[in-house]
Amino acid sequence: MKAPRGTQDLLPGVTEQWQYVEEKLKELTKNYHYKEIRTPIFEHTELFQRSVGDTTDIVQKEMYTFTDKGDRSITLRPEGTASVARSYVEHKLFGLPNQPTKLFYVGPMFRYERPQQGRMRQFVQFGVEVLGSADPAIDAEVMSLAMNAYRSLGLKSLKLVINSLGDKESREKHRQALVDHFSPVVDELCNDCQSRLHTNPLRILDCKKDRDHPKMKDAPSILDYLNDYSKEYFEKVKAYLDAMNIPYEVDPNLVRGLDYYNHTAFEIMSDAEGFGAITTLSGGGRYNGLVQELGGPETPGIGFALSIERLLMALEKEGVELPIDDQLDCFVVSLGDEANLKAAAVVNELRQAGVQVDKDYQGKKFKGQFKSADRLKAKYVLVLGDDELANNQISVKNMETGDQEAVSFDQLTTYIKGKL
Amino acid sequence: MKAPRGTQDLLPGVTEQWQYVEEKLKELTKNYHYKEIRTPIFEHTELFQRSVGDTTDIVQKEMYTFTDKGDRSITLRPEGTASVARSYVEHKLFGLPNQPTKLFYVGPMFRYERPQQGRMRQFVQFGVEVLGSADPAIDAEVMSLAMNAYRSLGLKSLKLVINSLGDKESREKHRQALVDHFSPVVDELCNDCQSRLHTNPLRILDCKKDRDHPKMKDAPSILDYLNDYSKEYFEKVKAYLDAMNIPYEVDPNLVRGLDYYNHTAFEIMSDAEGFGAITTLSGGGRYNGLVQELGGPETPGIGFALSIERLLMALEKEGVELPIDDQLDCFVVSLGDEANLKAAAVVNELRQAGVQVDKDYQGKKFKGQFKSADRLKAKYVLVLGDDELANNQISVKNMETGDQEAVSFDQLTTYIKGKL
Repeated sequence: MKAPRGTQDLLPGVTEQWQYVEEKLKELTKNYHYKEIRTPIFEHTELFQRSVGDTTDIVQKEMYTFTDKGDRSITLRPEGTASVARSYVEHKLFGLPNQPTKLFYVGPMFRYERPQQGRMRQFVQFGVEVLGSADPAIDAEVMSLAMNAYRSLGLKSLKLVINSLGDKESREKHRQALVDHFSPVVDELCNDCQSRLHTNPLRILDCKKDRDHPKMKDAPSILDYLNDYSKEYFEKVKAYLDAMNIPYEVDPNLVRGLDYYNHTAFEIMSDAEGFGAITTLSGGGRYNGLVQELGGPETPGIGFALSIERLLMALEKEGVELPIDDQLDCFVVSLGDEANLKAAAVVNELRQAGVQVDKDYQGKKFKGQFKSADRLKAKYVLVLGDDELANNQISVKNMETGDQEAVSFDQLTTYIKGKL
Repeated sequence: MKAPRGTQDLLPGVTEQWQYVEEKLKELTKNYHYKEIRTPIFEHTELFQRSVGDTTDIVQKEMYTFTDKGDRSITLRPEGTASVARSYVEHKLFGLPNQPTKLFYVGPMFRYERPQQGRMRQFVQFGVEVLGSADPAIDAEVMSLAMNAYRSLGLKSLKLVINSLGDKESREKHRQALVDHFSPVVDELCNDCQSRLHTNPLRILDCKKDRDHPKMKDAPSILDYLNDYSKEYFEKVKAYLDAMNIPYEVDPNLVRGLDYYNHTAFEIMSDAEGFGAITTLSGGGRYNGLVQELGGPETPGIGFALSIERLLMALEKEGVELPIDDQLDCFVVSLGDEANLKAAAVVNELRQAGVQVDKDYQGKKFKGQFKSADRLKAKYVLVLGDDELANNQISVKNMETGDQEAVSFDQLTTYIKGKL
């Protein structure tokens, strides 16, 4: 029997990398003062229809939706923002004294897509959401955090690309301009874009099939349709990025795939060689209408999410080695029924004192046990045979130097703790 | 919109407790030398039918089972052991040089039950599995780890209850004795037990409805039906627990709810006052046939799992306070466009140096910003106004002592790092 298609098992040797990455990301969120939120693995399907958007690929094609035993339509979450916004409204977090509410999450997401490298049906996202601030400084903060998520792990070939999608007014004007621009050639566009022209023409700019159509090049840019507020907002965001020494490029064609975005949109790309072409690692943006859409008060919001699978791919492509310690503190070797019982007691005592210890559990002879200790890279091997037992002692061998000492049982923990 | 029934959001203030507990559990697994495995959230339904067992309540009534877009029957995992065993077989972990394979996992599990305190439809289990050792010392190790999972967090009112379910031969003899014992009164038992009598009579001993039936008291005990190997195995397990100074009680009626258990079975109970009656916190046991059942080689196995929700309940009932730091290192206060830009730069620089910093993002006045700093329990408040800006300095106020110093921008990081 195998794991379901598009899912994977993370095994020892790999999980240490995940732990290291998650540890670093949590450290980062601590420094940036974001607090963790954990929402359920599944939600009412309606949540994603109303937030991610009925016309998106995610909602139309990619969701794991099913009916539970209580006849509810339930969906495994395809992304994190909708759930966080739902939780913010449900628990009235807007009423808490410390605002904005700065949150992070890390956990599995689910999309039924064709599995390929860097795109699994179950994948893990780390993301942050800030609810309750329309200060351009917070947009810059979120981008800084996003960039440092990669930098703190040693990635270098990174590019921050930003755009403004403007507010509602700006978007509507731009939308009309797009309809006017593409309508004369609508028959030459792909099927998806033909329907997009009326549901969400912005997304034509994002289409992979039509990207070489001659009308793409001179398509109306959102930046020419920003009203004064939107323009000023975008200028301030850039000023903060400049003040923080964070390089970026403006790409007026940067469009995010979900319905709820406005104003700031950004992506982080890798141009590491192994990736072939420039590849998007993660993205985010502002979503000022979302909380209200879900029944909460008018609340500005901004966030971003990254896939840990892709982050690990990027580390591999750039040849970054994570500093993972694979040594073992102690391995206890013993022979004979009485020595085995004593060994179990010694192991147990050391572990409770915070020492990492293992022993044999397969009835191996002395030689086989020493081999295990070697393979596990034990720093110290503790030997317990009849002689040692008779003297209430254990032999401690330093595997680096080869030095060996006899230590009495009641001194052992102190001795080992002193050596490590 | 609300989270689905039986699920919950974990919010800031609570997630810190989860982080602390998970951190402690990972430290424990490190000392015991268990490595992490992460399996998918859902599996092919057949996996649980074959391992947990077709006749169990979990499989018959409680699974979140659905059909995916590829027409596969998929189930959100109701427990962790089956997935780990499936992964062990799929990736041929039995072929690796270091045996036994000692694994831990932590993650959400799903059972469609009536939600109540300490029983959610989505809950988080931490568990360990050891595959490839039939050494009674490893049974004792797993129980030691289970007990220390609670003890290391400060819990005291704990009881380890153990039993042996024997090997196949012993179980079959006991099974026949149970059938003989209960057959004459089968009409007096509940509907479930009437069918259990033929599918799995052992589980009659576990029935909550029939627990006061007169035939329960003198039901045949498995301990009277253990063959020599099973008896000797159980004696050795107890000898190891004794050697490790781990107190336990033997309860011959202890039965585990899943099909795959044999030999050692155990539960950890809390007798803390708040729980009312003695309550099971977690359990585990040996499952020597499971890997073979899933298509792998004959492989002994043992494991245990605990619910983190219940663990947190137990901490609450015993009044254990987890040592969670809720202070903030620095809060930067600024006023004016130029000072705000500089503040963003200062915040960014400190964070990259590993300092935890926050600032205002709601356009508050000086006074309001100081209030935020207070509420967030900032150790240092860094003030940036026109004067400071003109002097290339920032005022650093120690909130504990009230001392204030002017520090130049280029000295700031060193200064703050020295103070913390």
